[in-house]
Amino acid sequence: MKTYLDCLPCMLQQALRAGRIATTDEKKIKTLLNTIGMMIQDIPMDNSPPEMGNIIYRKIREITGVYDPYKKIKADNINEVLALYPELIHIMNKSKNRLLTAIRLAIAGNVIDFGVNKEFNIPQSVQQIITQDFAILDLELFHDQLEKARSVLYLGDNAGESVFDKILITELGKPVTYVVRAIPVINDVTKEDAINSGLDEVAEVISSGTTAPATILSLCNDDFLKRFNDADMIISKGQGNYESLSGVERSLFFLLKAKCPLIARDLNVAENDIVLKAINLHETGFGTH
Amino acid sequence: MKTYLDCLPCMLQQALRAGRIATTDEKKIKTLLNTIGMMIQDIPMDNSPPEMGNIIYRKIREITGVYDPYKKIKADNINEVLALYPELIHIMNKSKNRLLTAIRLAIAGNVIDFGVNKEFNIPQSVQQIITQDFAILDLELFHDQLEKARSVLYLGDNAGESVFDKILITELGKPVTYVVRAIPVINDVTKEDAINSGLDEVAEVISSGTTAPATILSLCNDDFLKRFNDADMIISKGQGNYESLSGVERSLFFLLKAKCPLIARDLNVAENDIVLKAINLHETGFGTH
Repeated sequence: MKTYLDCLPCMLQQALRAGRIATTDEKKIKTLLNTIGMMIQDIPMDNSPPEMGNIIYRKIREITGVYDPYKKIKADNINEVLALYPELIHIMNKSKNRLLTAIRLAIAGNVIDFGVNKEFNIPQSVQQIITQDFAILDLELFHDQLEKARSVLYLGDNAGESVFDKILITELGKPVTYVVRAIPVINDVTKEDAINSGLDEVAEVISSGTTAPATILSLCNDDFLKRFNDADMIISKGQGNYESLSGVERSLFFLLKAKCPLIARDLNVAENDIVLKAINLHETGFGTH
Repeated sequence: MKTYLDCLPCMLQQALRAGRIATTDEKKIKTLLNTIGMMIQDIPMDNSPPEMGNIIYRKIREITGVYDPYKKIKADNINEVLALYPELIHIMNKSKNRLLTAIRLAIAGNVIDFGVNKEFNIPQSVQQIITQDFAILDLELFHDQLEKARSVLYLGDNAGESVFDKILITELGKPVTYVVRAIPVINDVTKEDAINSGLDEVAEVISSGTTAPATILSLCNDDFLKRFNDADMIISKGQGNYESLSGVERSLFFLLKAKCPLIARDLNVAENDIVLKAINLHETGFGTH
């Protein structure tokens, strides 16, 4: 997805929000906003928004001197979802369509997002998404590709969400490789977070090698790129991964809640809609891409 | 009121919104955002936000080549309120406290604001504000000062709002000078708008001389400054005038709806609260300042 004009004020807003989480020093935050303001003129609008996000969060680290501003928030989110875990399992056990319910729960976790300017409530999100209609639901394609796949590459999004991902991964019933960010960026999932959420019990956890809050292929490491190219099935969680991968020529399933109005528009859905969307998928093939 | 860090992304957002109203040329709007982005580093945070607003709207005129982007919107707003006028008079006629009702109506018109990122509905605003509790209501001070005043200086805000102001001005029962912006800025009231709304039938209409969406004294003309200094009573409408005048050493009545969270915080009220607030007023004096 390209960068829209609306993304520019939003980037400054994100920098302010993240700067305030990193430090109470208003001068440092002003320096950060000055820096991002000056960079607006250099943003290539054909790039996806997380490419600028990558630079913004690097500047936040440099200017505030804080490597992982969301460390405590991420731990709190993971613990909150772990405390909900028995209830989530209960929801799964009484479900008539376990795969679809697991997909819904994986989307419920997608509300835990500090990149967008929205309040969230995790238990409320679960209750809502369990009955919410999908704006796009490519479930049959998902089911077919899953049946044929020898293994699945699963691109993680935020840290707390990874506990929900564990439920879907268990339900997939295939060997899964779970992909995390190389270093802490916003509240996105890192290797440490994935281990804290117990994800390593159900999947191999690898880093994409990128410091961006997304999967920007040109910034990913060779190991990840090989797996990305060879995978029988790829599940991409969340907005950042959508923004960076919506234009690739590769079969993929996007699983997300459209919290940002621009991403919603790009997907041709309404804000707050939930989506399971297949791209570049040809019904004939196995692992087609 | 000083500029808060939160004002900076908001200024970029305002520039985008106004740029889009002025032109559909995305390149020009990007140039505008580049320019505002670069200027962030030079914003003196001790200045009031409309001082930057003044520069932003000048840049919008320069870069888009459109002198009055809100011309049609302002005319439509005035016509909408003029169509409501009989109903507003009906509300006045059945009121038990005509002065307070006229004050409420004058605040109802304050929702017509394209500087803040909020939708508004004028008839709904009237219905709501007619019964809404005031967060601050210095009505007795207002009444006392009005009784003693030989005349009133009334600082206008937006164009459509001026039709509501006409009702309050009539109710004041004193000679009123109504102050407008020197040139079109956002949807603020100009001399032409005030005449279109019939305001000239009840008040002398003068310009403050400033091109800012506010009353920045250092940018006002000498005639206005003399009247400002000599006035027995000053009524200041809306957020922009509050931002620019909240720090002056002059008795004033602010009349507004706190649509912006920062202005609400500065006033120590909640967002969307309505306010009639006296400052620098000593109960002993006549025209004290």
